[in-house]
Amino acid sequence: MSKITVFTLFTAAALAAGAVELKSPDGKLALDFDLSDGGRPTYSLTFDNKTVVKPSTLGLELVNDTDLIEGFEIKGHEVTTFDETWQPVWGETSHIRNHYNELLVELAQPATGRLMNLRFRLYDDGLGFRYEFPLQNNLVYFVVKEEHTQFAMNGDHTAWWIAGDYDTQEYDYTESRLSEIRNLSAGSISSNESQTQFSPTGVQTSLQMKTDDGLYINLHEAALVDYSCMHLNLNDSTMVFESWLTPDAVGNKAYMQAPTHTPWRTVMVSDDARDMLSSNLILNLNEPCAYDDTSWIKPVKYVGVWWEMIGHGKEWSYTYDLPSVKLDTLDYSKTKPHGRHPANTENVKRYIDFAAEHGFDQVLVEGWNVGWEDWFGHSKDYVFDFVTPYPDFDLEGLNAYAAEKGVKLMMHHETSGSVRNYERHLEEAYNLMNKYGYNSVKSGYVGNMIPRGEHHYGQWLNNHYLYAVTEAAKHKIMVNAHEAVRPTGLCRTYPNLIGNESARGSEYESFAGNKPSHTTVLPFTRLQGGPMDYTPGLFEMDMKKVNPTSSGHVNSTLARQLALYVTMYSPLQMAADVPDVYERFMDAFQFIKDVAVDWDDSKYLEAEPGRYIVAARKAKGTDNWFVGCTASEHGHETTIPLDFLDKGRKYEATIYADAPDAHYLTNPQAYTITRKKVTDKSKLKLKAAPGGGFAISIIPVD
Amino acid sequence: MSKITVFTLFTAAALAAGAVELKSPDGKLALDFDLSDGGRPTYSLTFDNKTVVKPSTLGLELVNDTDLIEGFEIKGHEVTTFDETWQPVWGETSHIRNHYNELLVELAQPATGRLMNLRFRLYDDGLGFRYEFPLQNNLVYFVVKEEHTQFAMNGDHTAWWIAGDYDTQEYDYTESRLSEIRNLSAGSISSNESQTQFSPTGVQTSLQMKTDDGLYINLHEAALVDYSCMHLNLNDSTMVFESWLTPDAVGNKAYMQAPTHTPWRTVMVSDDARDMLSSNLILNLNEPCAYDDTSWIKPVKYVGVWWEMIGHGKEWSYTYDLPSVKLDTLDYSKTKPHGRHPANTENVKRYIDFAAEHGFDQVLVEGWNVGWEDWFGHSKDYVFDFVTPYPDFDLEGLNAYAAEKGVKLMMHHETSGSVRNYERHLEEAYNLMNKYGYNSVKSGYVGNMIPRGEHHYGQWLNNHYLYAVTEAAKHKIMVNAHEAVRPTGLCRTYPNLIGNESARGSEYESFAGNKPSHTTVLPFTRLQGGPMDYTPGLFEMDMKKVNPTSSGHVNSTLARQLALYVTMYSPLQMAADVPDVYERFMDAFQFIKDVAVDWDDSKYLEAEPGRYIVAARKAKGTDNWFVGCTASEHGHETTIPLDFLDKGRKYEATIYADAPDAHYLTNPQAYTITRKKVTDKSKLKLKAAPGGGFAISIIPVD
Repeated sequence: MSKITVFTLFTAAALAAGAVELKSPDGKLALDFDLSDGGRPTYSLTFDNKTVVKPSTLGLELVNDTDLIEGFEIKGHEVTTFDETWQPVWGETSHIRNHYNELLVELAQPATGRLMNLRFRLYDDGLGFRYEFPLQNNLVYFVVKEEHTQFAMNGDHTAWWIAGDYDTQEYDYTESRLSEIRNLSAGSISSNESQTQFSPTGVQTSLQMKTDDGLYINLHEAALVDYSCMHLNLNDSTMVFESWLTPDAVGNKAYMQAPTHTPWRTVMVSDDARDMLSSNLILNLNEPCAYDDTSWIKPVKYVGVWWEMIGHGKEWSYTYDLPSVKLDTLDYSKTKPHGRHPANTENVKRYIDFAAEHGFDQVLVEGWNVGWEDWFGHSKDYVFDFVTPYPDFDLEGLNAYAAEKGVKLMMHHETSGSVRNYERHLEEAYNLMNKYGYNSVKSGYVGNMIPRGEHHYGQWLNNHYLYAVTEAAKHKIMVNAHEAVRPTGLCRTYPNLIGNESARGSEYESFAGNKPSHTTVLPFTRLQGGPMDYTPGLFEMDMKKVNPTSSGHVNSTLARQLALYVTMYSPLQMAADVPDVYERFMDAFQFIKDVAVDWDDSKYLEAEPGRYIVAARKAKGTDNWFVGCTASEHGHETTIPLDFLDKGRKYEATIYADAPDAHYLTNPQAYTITRKKVTDKSKLKLKAAPGGGFAISIIPVD
Repeated sequence: MSKITVFTLFTAAALAAGAVELKSPDGKLALDFDLSDGGRPTYSLTFDNKTVVKPSTLGLELVNDTDLIEGFEIKGHEVTTFDETWQPVWGETSHIRNHYNELLVELAQPATGRLMNLRFRLYDDGLGFRYEFPLQNNLVYFVVKEEHTQFAMNGDHTAWWIAGDYDTQEYDYTESRLSEIRNLSAGSISSNESQTQFSPTGVQTSLQMKTDDGLYINLHEAALVDYSCMHLNLNDSTMVFESWLTPDAVGNKAYMQAPTHTPWRTVMVSDDARDMLSSNLILNLNEPCAYDDTSWIKPVKYVGVWWEMIGHGKEWSYTYDLPSVKLDTLDYSKTKPHGRHPANTENVKRYIDFAAEHGFDQVLVEGWNVGWEDWFGHSKDYVFDFVTPYPDFDLEGLNAYAAEKGVKLMMHHETSGSVRNYERHLEEAYNLMNKYGYNSVKSGYVGNMIPRGEHHYGQWLNNHYLYAVTEAAKHKIMVNAHEAVRPTGLCRTYPNLIGNESARGSEYESFAGNKPSHTTVLPFTRLQGGPMDYTPGLFEMDMKKVNPTSSGHVNSTLARQLALYVTMYSPLQMAADVPDVYERFMDAFQFIKDVAVDWDDSKYLEAEPGRYIVAARKAKGTDNWFVGCTASEHGHETTIPLDFLDKGRKYEATIYADAPDAHYLTNPQAYTITRKKVTDKSKLKLKAAPGGGFAISIIPVD
């Protein structure tokens, strides 16, 4: 049952001075809108009378047309309120309240006879606003040269940021003052083979900040549809951020057709860091679910043929004999297999057996399809066909085998950035999935984009990513897209988008490593827009032990790897390590088997970006709770009251904790498992090691 | 029956000096190949000891790699001969002989360890050559920055040229000396809404030239597949043409993957202009038919709902109420029809009736599908869906009505240059055609390209055009693509490509007019690569009579309009004017009804570029001959011996000629029709008026 209340609070003409104020439902946030000198739209935001955004101007610069920046008059404005509770198909909670006050400002630009509206939605936990362009005679088609949306900060805040880039987000976060970004930016970049940094003070969203007086401020966007992705460029003299859109091949930022609007620009704010994590502002700003039937959308816990390549040095390819693969004339029968191809029938059966034995839903297999011998770095157009298996991968037999065991295979579509080729094969690829019983696909966009000149985060690609999702829905297929644009809450509207990467995932632990604090930042930043396929569950930290040529080290304790299934919310969770490793730690592995991937309720018990996050979640349709803590290199000591449990009820808590001498670098596999009876009165004293954490399952016993 | 002879003439190592000579089968043409200073591949060509191409260098400039221009050594060479006769699915003749001597030169570039071959094929009527890149370790993927293929002319020849342009060929031809191109170029450009001229001495192919000593030289290319279209840039000091490829969005010219090769570069040469027209060199350089079954490919004579819009000022659109069409939310039921939409059920039925009555195969209907209200000039991505008819077009009923009458409707797919959108809808669009019985589609690419920054003639689009054709073949659909890249003989390999525009067609007669000489040039230039959907048959020359707002004039006599069905070879011929006009000239219209669209034999009786063409063709599977003459503003007087007729057999000739006082400007509709008995001994004395012509049907009477 959802409850919708909409009523107009105020529809009078503009105030004498032109200024309009809007308050959040709880009255704590206040938005001021006005036209400044020359008719420039200007807004500011306060929280508890503390400045969050200083007066900041709004406008769009157009290609070959008068800009939509100044010369505006207020034609009218309208204030409404909205209160609705809706149920996500999957999520952190079973119900989400969408409660805001809204200000619609109708602007006219008399010199051009054009109209532009600004719509502000003020929630208790932040602001969303967007530009809207109603149907009109003098502004139908237009091209955005640059969007000039300002976010004027009130000081030299601390920020957790990654450098602005049109093609990748796979960076470690840097914690610094805003004024330090310029000097730290270049050093924060690591090679990803496809990166396009645009400014020494450019950063990506969602950007988490903290002010010296204890406000947490987060800048992001919501409902990025048919527009290019917004980055932020900082004027580090004035501490004013300005929107910086991703350009297309000819340098334009967005092609618009009225009636239309931009995505929402968001400013989340609170004096409690936990509110940043529990906020549903981004989801609420997205449209309701677009599908009538969502019964086929199911959260997924999976294992897969993946870490063998990423971490253990095995290959996606089948042979070393093919320096030049042309799919239309390819004949693998004449090549010599190199024998390092784990996506083979026998090995995949082992994964299926393991998944069936331990209750996993699916088995991902990467490297199942022909073309991997020269897939990367060549701007190759026809790189994969997405339907032809390698000779050693029995497509039909393995799917039948998996089905017998109650497991599904997960499809893998690496596009190599060649999206025309992917779109040409998409229907046939999805048909193949339907034929063999696949219901989910991990897609990838590694490398430079084709069409050449386009970027991962431009309007062209954003349009493509959503196309792949909506076409998949026609086939009842769920999508987990890697290297795609960062999520902006579209999973509310299109809940078959069950995952994205769009950040530095576990795979980097086998390359250059992730900072120990990485998972204490991601929920404040990357996860604001939607779930991440982070692929936790790495139990072997010393990569040299499994791959002599590797110098990689997983910067985490084993106990923290368990905690990530709780702290990194996702309806799609992988147990990323290989079965052989899990067999050595079956007592710890039990937590991964037990933990849920869908929830009726979630509580953030403690949180500080870059330091620690402690979350408790109640598994969907049960009374089981799961608690997780991830800590930075400083570790974390805490006492957790279990007051979220049902009053008076008895539970057994199983606590997977770092051993006293655990340390992410020197002793990551030292953990303890203890069981104790608990109630809502209990308090648990716990300690996370440096780079460590803990995980707790709390199961009712009465 | 085809006869293939291949044998090696010569496989010895290189001659002492490195130079190699190759002769044409008849010995008249001689090619010399050598490496010039610094190891640059160099060739020259003579015809009867007259210089055709002076020593000219060959090479490729690469992106971020050592160029393939100099430092070559000859590893070896091989001379072979080939003689085969093949049967085209449709064509000017029932059999085509493919007879050439071939020289393969194997080059090595020791400094880089790379290999490049040059393959020359010398025919009696010209030369084809291409670059080949065998599979090798040091050159697999590479990007062409520019191709430097030279064609060094031996003098300041006369040329019939259109200005170099990446996006349109819809220009009138200019006849001038090569040295005059620079001064005439800018003035030769007329607006086409999508044009990108690249150089004041740039010209397009096929380029027809004539030397002062009477040689006809034609430069073009054959088998343009997965490469960008070649233009020519003239150094007008030295009279050296150099290849100038069409760039992509980031300025690159071609993305290559060995083993691969470039298209063929062609130099046709003869001292008889008629040999330029009868040559099959371009077709012969293309690969044999790629389809096993071609029974579904049929030449087409058609009428259509088209000139009502182009010439008469009617609309493709349905309403004036929609300044902004969004197909996913469109509701035409709320709009007011403007009533100027000829693609309506009642009107289309009239065309179907007319087609059935007069023996036409098909009726083209443009403007049948939703979206035309704002289809053009907005860089609009989702511009058409290719499946939804306007409310006044009964898709199912009209196809049923046509089928009853033994006629097919011809589909129309205007893409507006938005090729991602077209590819996304292609399968569904072709399925719709199959459902309702369409077997041919006229496609269009008007306006600037999407992906933005790509050009009509770049590798990206060339790949697309062929994709649309090969996907159509899977649906047994024939394609007639307008605004696509100029043809290069691919219709041999993919004979469902039954037509292209790729030049200035009849439609311009209603805009700015075509030069009276236009159709005396096109067969020498545009038609070298394949048939053109020129849409002749305009009987009303004074456009003001049918459209008061028009100042257009068809620069042709009526008799010449008939002749074009013979002189402009195409398996796809439209009678472009409207039924009402034809009803006024049914005696002349009889020729259009009678003339064939497929042939067993063709003879070019007289030809001079820019002056006149007289062609005689024998209709497929019959003994009927059809003769046509098109003349420039100078007219043409001639006496034609009918010695191509069967010896001793009696025929009736019906001669559709310009009346004595006919003139394309002042008296274009004055024609005479005379009938006479003829044999192979007969000679017909005939006269074409200025901008006129004549057409003759010759039917056996015994």
